[in-house]
Amino acid sequence: MAITLYEIVAAGDARISNNCWRTRMALAHKGLAYETRACRHVDIARICDSRRKGLPVIEDGACVIEDSWRIAEHLECAYAHGASLFDGEAGRAFALFVHVWLRPAVHLPAVQMLAGDLHDRLLPEDRAYFRSRQEARFGRTLEEMQADREGRIDAWRELLEPLRACVLDRPFLGGERPLYVDYVVFGTFQWARMISPFRLLADGDPLAAWFERCLDLFAGTGRAVDAFY
Amino acid sequence: MAITLYEIVAAGDARISNNCWRTRMALAHKGLAYETRACRHVDIARICDSRRKGLPVIEDGACVIEDSWRIAEHLECAYAHGASLFDGEAGRAFALFVHVWLRPAVHLPAVQMLAGDLHDRLLPEDRAYFRSRQEARFGRTLEEMQADREGRIDAWRELLEPLRACVLDRPFLGGERPLYVDYVVFGTFQWARMISPFRLLADGDPLAAWFERCLDLFAGTGRAVDAFY
Repeated sequence: MAITLYEIVAAGDARISNNCWRTRMALAHKGLAYETRACRHVDIARICDSRRKGLPVIEDGACVIEDSWRIAEHLECAYAHGASLFDGEAGRAFALFVHVWLRPAVHLPAVQMLAGDLHDRLLPEDRAYFRSRQEARFGRTLEEMQADREGRIDAWRELLEPLRACVLDRPFLGGERPLYVDYVVFGTFQWARMISPFRLLADGDPLAAWFERCLDLFAGTGRAVDAFY
Repeated sequence: MAITLYEIVAAGDARISNNCWRTRMALAHKGLAYETRACRHVDIARICDSRRKGLPVIEDGACVIEDSWRIAEHLECAYAHGASLFDGEAGRAFALFVHVWLRPAVHLPAVQMLAGDLHDRLLPEDRAYFRSRQEARFGRTLEEMQADREGRIDAWRELLEPLRACVLDRPFLGGERPLYVDYVVFGTFQWARMISPFRLLADGDPLAAWFERCLDLFAGTGRAVDAFY
């Protein structure tokens, strides 16, 4: 039985969620067949067993699993015969570290730089909630958050230095082959290219070349979607 | 022939350098005999082949290697028969990531919180240079940097969340066994306990228990030195 992936939907049926892209890539890495179900924010509490608060959620036979990290651990354990997502215990720890580090240090500052563009890509009924939540959190309008992004992008790129170090002499973050840690980071850059023409990575950045390699994975599953670049 | 480790010396012949502790632990992990040579900052340019700018430096037969990360890579390669420092390619990447991440994100903010205490532990002839360099960098006196540390420690501890996640259900950062990534982080906490009574980790923090486990490694080599706690 195919796995079902519930993922957030944006305008035009676009699947822009960074966390859902992590799971998409993990499923492809394991070579697993899956179907996706588009889900609006307001519908999350109604899916599966009605106990879910966020997406992605996967339904895998009798198992319902929420949260991109827990899904990755489930896939690694339940489909141990497939290519490993972690490459051992230390590689699992690397992925977990980056999973915890990325959101506050990298992803949320990126949300601020792309806030207005992101708003415009959401389903019309999700926009007011997104605006009020973000503006309350940061004390500025979405348009103000985005306005001075050219002045903030260099400092943001500097935060990526630990990731950059890993791909200076290796094709992927964990070495010669892509691993779940790549997909954790890929999610943010895939989300960015689907919602905004603003480039988070400079031409010539080793991470830009790494991202292109990720877009090529699994017959170009990441590259195939509508995006700004 | 034993390896020679050149390391920075503080007052009372104390070997407080976080980077040098990384190398000490890596040498112990590999089960390698080594001798240490205490070195003052002003003497670094005179050791070995007179081309060195920072410590640690190791002399291993005909090889002279500078920089804690390059030393770890050398040891892993030259002593491949010993216990691995990295546990595979993904584990190597984890250690490299943490090596690059730790200094700006974690260690330098800790230097600011311990600046006055650190000053007082340096060799008398190193104090004026340390003071002028740090005060120029941060625009405050060492005493000012340290003064409001109680108000900053909670935010600093929050930065450790990715590390904490790794030891919630594992004894060491990379899993069941200690690896070089542990020593990268250990260096900062060992340095801290040798220079200041101010506790960087709260009682009950899973990282405090992890640090105690690191102090026990290799017959308590880290625990054996003079320290405040």
